[in-house]
Amino acid sequence: VPDTVWTIVVAAGSGQRFGMPKQYEELGGRRLLDWALEAAKAAGDGVVLVLPAADVPAGDPSTVAGGASRSESVRHGLAAVPGDADIVCVHDAARPFASAALFEAVVDAVRAGADGAVPGVAVTDTVKVVDGTGAVVSTPERSTLRAVQTPQAFRADVLRRAHESGREGTDDAALVEAIGGRVVVVPGDPLNRKITHPDDLAWARAQIASSR
Amino acid sequence: VPDTVWTIVVAAGSGQRFGMPKQYEELGGRRLLDWALEAAKAAGDGVVLVLPAADVPAGDPSTVAGGASRSESVRHGLAAVPGDADIVCVHDAARPFASAALFEAVVDAVRAGADGAVPGVAVTDTVKVVDGTGAVVSTPERSTLRAVQTPQAFRADVLRRAHESGREGTDDAALVEAIGGRVVVVPGDPLNRKITHPDDLAWARAQIASSR
Repeated sequence: VPDTVWTIVVAAGSGQRFGMPKQYEELGGRRLLDWALEAAKAAGDGVVLVLPAADVPAGDPSTVAGGASRSESVRHGLAAVPGDADIVCVHDAARPFASAALFEAVVDAVRAGADGAVPGVAVTDTVKVVDGTGAVVSTPERSTLRAVQTPQAFRADVLRRAHESGREGTDDAALVEAIGGRVVVVPGDPLNRKITHPDDLAWARAQIASSR
Repeated sequence: VPDTVWTIVVAAGSGQRFGMPKQYEELGGRRLLDWALEAAKAAGDGVVLVLPAADVPAGDPSTVAGGASRSESVRHGLAAVPGDADIVCVHDAARPFASAALFEAVVDAVRAGADGAVPGVAVTDTVKVVDGTGAVVSTPERSTLRAVQTPQAFRADVLRRAHESGREGTDDAALVEAIGGRVVVVPGDPLNRKITHPDDLAWARAQIASSR
């Protein structure tokens, strides 16, 4: 019996950094979030979409309201994932260019035995850890760093346990790591950028224009 | 007496990641490196340019040959900086859009007492530390991370001492940190991106086109 794969698409942000709820911005004739939704639908057996509470349509069990934080939003999504799902992916709606191959790569790594798998790319800038005053505390060796993306795939039971704690993290892998889960990084895709600033949306539109 | 400020512009790369020596690529009617050179000249009292050995013109004491690594190239540049320089900036030729204000900010922070000052911007992706097998070792708290840029400014005597060790680092600040120097991060500029891939050069060209 093949593993059942579900994906939670997180689109619950209020757009604090972007200035407006970016998930509804137009990109190539669709909403930004439709790109992530479509990729997620093609990648597995089902999708749960997490939206701002005000935007959740009545009577659609596959669309749920987000929470006060990203991690809480994922928890709300996880509660709507069927109990027989074996592998759960979490994907940010702000990444329109995640490929089918990338979903496959993270799911395959979990099938191969990892508790979680995340795509990661090399970091080109030197990264420093600073304290509250802006003084440098340390410079981690750059070759050991990966900037990680979504989709992130997890064994469903491990992800559920990781979220039971109610902990917060900038990604789900961090929560799985915190309970001792083994997470591996697979090669990410430089094109799979997160749309954070209006500048990034301009870049995404240019990408689409140049690939047509 | 005001402090004497010199800048080392590092343009000694062979373009391993880029596919060709990127410092000579055309950008807005000039070579990529001319942008950094011009900003550096406006920012202080003198500039030393570090080029691939084959490209160093005879009889120009302000242009020197690079070494086998970035840190060695900076050391070669440092040897050509006059002994009476009080503050030395190091700037990568691959960053065409460093503003005069950014040079001023790092130099001012050193004038105010830091051993070194570097521009840094918030990190938008979650960053993980991995081991040699790609397994995640840790997830540093993202709010404490800064992606750092150049120009980086240093007290000249501290930078010289840091380089005496012959150590290697992905930036000069790491060498200063390694000998116990106090380095601070000042707000960087998202536009001050490093041109690493041909994609980045296309972005830089679009920036120039849209600002005209």
